[in-house]
Amino acid sequence: MYYGGIEAGGTKFVCAVSDKDFKIIERVSIPTTAPEETLQHIFEFFDNYQLDSIGIGSFGPIDVNRKSATYGYVTSTPKKGWNNYDFVGAIKGRYDIPVAWTTDVNAAAFGEYRKGSAQNSKSCLYLTVGTGIGGGAVVNGEIIDGFGHPEMGHILVRNHPEDDFEGVCPYHGNCLEGIAAGPAIEKRLNIKGQDLEKSDHYWEIEAYYLAQALVNYTMILRPEVLILGGGVMKQEQLFPLIRTEFKKVMNEYVTTPDLDTYIVAPGLGDNAGITGSLLLAAEKAI
Amino acid sequence: MYYGGIEAGGTKFVCAVSDKDFKIIERVSIPTTAPEETLQHIFEFFDNYQLDSIGIGSFGPIDVNRKSATYGYVTSTPKKGWNNYDFVGAIKGRYDIPVAWTTDVNAAAFGEYRKGSAQNSKSCLYLTVGTGIGGGAVVNGEIIDGFGHPEMGHILVRNHPEDDFEGVCPYHGNCLEGIAAGPAIEKRLNIKGQDLEKSDHYWEIEAYYLAQALVNYTMILRPEVLILGGGVMKQEQLFPLIRTEFKKVMNEYVTTPDLDTYIVAPGLGDNAGITGSLLLAAEKAI
Repeated sequence: MYYGGIEAGGTKFVCAVSDKDFKIIERVSIPTTAPEETLQHIFEFFDNYQLDSIGIGSFGPIDVNRKSATYGYVTSTPKKGWNNYDFVGAIKGRYDIPVAWTTDVNAAAFGEYRKGSAQNSKSCLYLTVGTGIGGGAVVNGEIIDGFGHPEMGHILVRNHPEDDFEGVCPYHGNCLEGIAAGPAIEKRLNIKGQDLEKSDHYWEIEAYYLAQALVNYTMILRPEVLILGGGVMKQEQLFPLIRTEFKKVMNEYVTTPDLDTYIVAPGLGDNAGITGSLLLAAEKAI
Repeated sequence: MYYGGIEAGGTKFVCAVSDKDFKIIERVSIPTTAPEETLQHIFEFFDNYQLDSIGIGSFGPIDVNRKSATYGYVTSTPKKGWNNYDFVGAIKGRYDIPVAWTTDVNAAAFGEYRKGSAQNSKSCLYLTVGTGIGGGAVVNGEIIDGFGHPEMGHILVRNHPEDDFEGVCPYHGNCLEGIAAGPAIEKRLNIKGQDLEKSDHYWEIEAYYLAQALVNYTMILRPEVLILGGGVMKQEQLFPLIRTEFKKVMNEYVTTPDLDTYIVAPGLGDNAGITGSLLLAAEKAI
């Protein structure tokens, strides 16, 4: 029995084949070019295996609403060729097997829920903080969605008293993504986050924004674990700063697990997404 | 087959007995006094029936974490006698039958999900706006909780440009509840909301706060229906104002159902909570 997993990112696709125990047998990284070309590379890889099912965690926005005529499509992306692209249809056209379809962050959340930082919990939230900010939640083994998938990066936050940055989100200006993702850091400071001193005061401001978001997620979902991944979170000094700001903003209103175990890095590191995709192939393919 | 339902409020308890089709056979309203006295009245009512199970939707905060030693307790309420009160234990001590236990707003959300404004949907969120603000969500028939139950009223919102009110929440000042619940309206305007002209400009400001919250809930949960109940929402002029503000704040970033069917009043009116409690007795009692 073989599972196929696709972590479909805007820059590259990671594809993997695993055995029934999710041990990865082979993996490949494919640059994201035009859909037909990218898919051709995927087919060349998967054609070597008799797959039982495939799980896809895709960049978005995507249509995950099973009632919708465009279920399985990448929808309104500016990425050339991928706008209104029937991704699941293309995969199903080649392989007549069940396919699980969700966002990249939902797949990562599912991976962390089963095999990572939340493996002993009943619920978790995974947030990626990088070029953009996105999140996914799993509650009792189910990925949370509804009319569509979450867009957790676009919640509204308050500006830090020392920061009047107006934000870069074309839709909301200073929403969380607009004020705290990688491009916002660079626009504000004229330096990439990765080149900023780890002791720079800005990290406390960044931590304040992320903490506000984590407080809101906590109030709404009460997850057992909050997992923070993505490029910006490679700045490990952020974790203790976020915990400090979270404590201040929450002001002991609701109980949470100890913050050192509540606000954590992905247990699977950069493999959360591909692992989640393989697990989704096994558990959620239709 | 009989189900018992308890909608446990800070001012009064509504208890009901229904048949297997959730038709209410008898109901009673009991003032909330000391726990022992209140429970005595509940017992007198339920003792007349051979109940199969009981569902409770309670004022909070309460402990809904089944791993916890104080599962079934009302926890840190300032309400005299109810602090750390083992509510489920008291019910189970009298009736050796399964009991479902959740918050009043979760019960209302569940009632609306099965029999009210969300009965044709796979997910919904119910928000009560009254003396306090609280919310509950149901996704695919499951009530969303985790380490504890949500406290959706305490998410952070931004002050309206025309409103510098500092809020009345003892924990967070101008969180949503602190800035938009009934006591905040009265403190700010020196008049109760119910006595304010329906055409007063303040209602647009109130709508802005509620719309911000609904945008955040939408980004995080993508529910198919947002249901707004509670005393403040008796001001029906708020609904179109909230829809207008929601459209502005969301700025067409994610798709939602048509706002006239997305942001709505409870289909069950004031019976959402007790109906939900009876449904929970049937479906979720343990």
